[in-house]
Amino acid sequence: MNDIDLSNINITIVGLGLIGGSFAKSIRENINLKNLWAIDVDENVLSTAEKLKIIDKGFINPKFPLQNSDIIILCIYPNLTIKFIKDNINDFKQNAIITDTSGIKHKIVQEVNSFIRDDLDFIGGHPMAGKEVNGFSNSNDNIFYNAQYILTPSKRSNLTNINILKVLLSELKFEAVTELTPESHDHIIAYTSHLPHIIACALVNNVANNTCSCIGGSFKDATRVANINASLWSELLIENKDAVLEEVDKFIGDINNIYKLIESNEQEYLRLYLEKSCEKRKMMKV
Amino acid sequence: MNDIDLSNINITIVGLGLIGGSFAKSIRENINLKNLWAIDVDENVLSTAEKLKIIDKGFINPKFPLQNSDIIILCIYPNLTIKFIKDNINDFKQNAIITDTSGIKHKIVQEVNSFIRDDLDFIGGHPMAGKEVNGFSNSNDNIFYNAQYILTPSKRSNLTNINILKVLLSELKFEAVTELTPESHDHIIAYTSHLPHIIACALVNNVANNTCSCIGGSFKDATRVANINASLWSELLIENKDAVLEEVDKFIGDINNIYKLIESNEQEYLRLYLEKSCEKRKMMKV
Repeated sequence: MNDIDLSNINITIVGLGLIGGSFAKSIRENINLKNLWAIDVDENVLSTAEKLKIIDKGFINPKFPLQNSDIIILCIYPNLTIKFIKDNINDFKQNAIITDTSGIKHKIVQEVNSFIRDDLDFIGGHPMAGKEVNGFSNSNDNIFYNAQYILTPSKRSNLTNINILKVLLSELKFEAVTELTPESHDHIIAYTSHLPHIIACALVNNVANNTCSCIGGSFKDATRVANINASLWSELLIENKDAVLEEVDKFIGDINNIYKLIESNEQEYLRLYLEKSCEKRKMMKV
Repeated sequence: MNDIDLSNINITIVGLGLIGGSFAKSIRENINLKNLWAIDVDENVLSTAEKLKIIDKGFINPKFPLQNSDIIILCIYPNLTIKFIKDNINDFKQNAIITDTSGIKHKIVQEVNSFIRDDLDFIGGHPMAGKEVNGFSNSNDNIFYNAQYILTPSKRSNLTNINILKVLLSELKFEAVTELTPESHDHIIAYTSHLPHIIACALVNNVANNTCSCIGGSFKDATRVANINASLWSELLIENKDAVLEEVDKFIGDINNIYKLIESNEQEYLRLYLEKSCEKRKMMKV
């Protein structure tokens, strides 16, 4: 796997926002390759990235970079990811690897695989990294350092291609790359990412001026991600509806267990519950 | 208020744990006073603090330091706070100011005021600061920097005494000292502190080994405080039961509103809800 040579390949990033921009900066910083191109609808972002020498060239029209790229990394919204691949399916280079970075995987992998050309390999991806700000100007390669990366290859994915992506990602300093099925990914992520975002947004709902003087670290941290990209997240949550609602149900059940212990003054059982939570949190090692 | 001179007073800290230790270190670092004493049941902690010159002297027996201290800062559990003041009510110096640091205020202020000597002034306090570790060895004056402090004077509190505490606390580099009634404190804190702790503990309940590779910042941050002092928190939550259960009910209502929007595929209404949350979070300015 370490024999893989990236020095003669072209990579194109589709969408130079927070994640796409961070990918571009990280690839430029860490990888010796032939060409790094980007496709975006915003000419200004492309010319800024060109001037800063973060990309070799930017394109509004995807034809040329797609026809000449070995790896294409899509950094756009979930449904737009499917649409972009479908609209440009005839323009991808023979045997190209296409990957994405969106927060849901089952629907994307299933739909893309339903129309993809036989020679192309779509391998879904999801960097467990982000920021409470959007756009290329906020992108930074350091958001990837020590973050987790999930790849969701399908049965038709080629082992060599999976390894190429793994080598690429490890060069970008992700802490670990884990392979999951698209279904497992969506289920686990409903719990570890979608649920905490829902909680954060619900929790800030009653914040008022007179509450602010009483805000400590616990409230700050639990609501940090309420500073949310509402368009993206309304799409993610609905696209992952079944798993999300199941996790919300489980969580409300857990909250109700604590509620009942408090209500009935069961201080010793409450202490045991909190102690178990404390042990589980320590087990997480993060 | 700035004319207040602390250089000729004695302060005693009761309980040299995380908060008491941090108070001792911060007072030693920032305030020129006559004597800084501490009372604790653990002789080792007292002698360590003495050797490090953080306190001038430590006492197992509270009589001498209480009889000679102008300000007493209790840094022990809520019910123990009440018991300590009651057990030692005849030993406090004439006109002393007694304050505490525990996370609930109504019960403590009410009970202490029911038996306190007329010349003494009990003014409840609550530093909005902490750590996921306990004990003197983890104490650090930097946990107070830029943190909020709540004081809950009662009707019998003397204005000069309140001001003395405010001067003391501002010297310890708290960002702001806010006065609230004990009842308001408990209600607001149920929302801004007790609720996020309950959420964190409920949220880690389903964590498993295969979830860990999918953990990003949102889950880490929302569960940070699940690393909890279970004995202290089981007491706090039950002592503030009415306000806590009311806030949990409201929160479940807010979660259910999001649930229904997802369930019925109301993407545009969901986007608006999340956008409102985002604005509220930005308003918090923390």
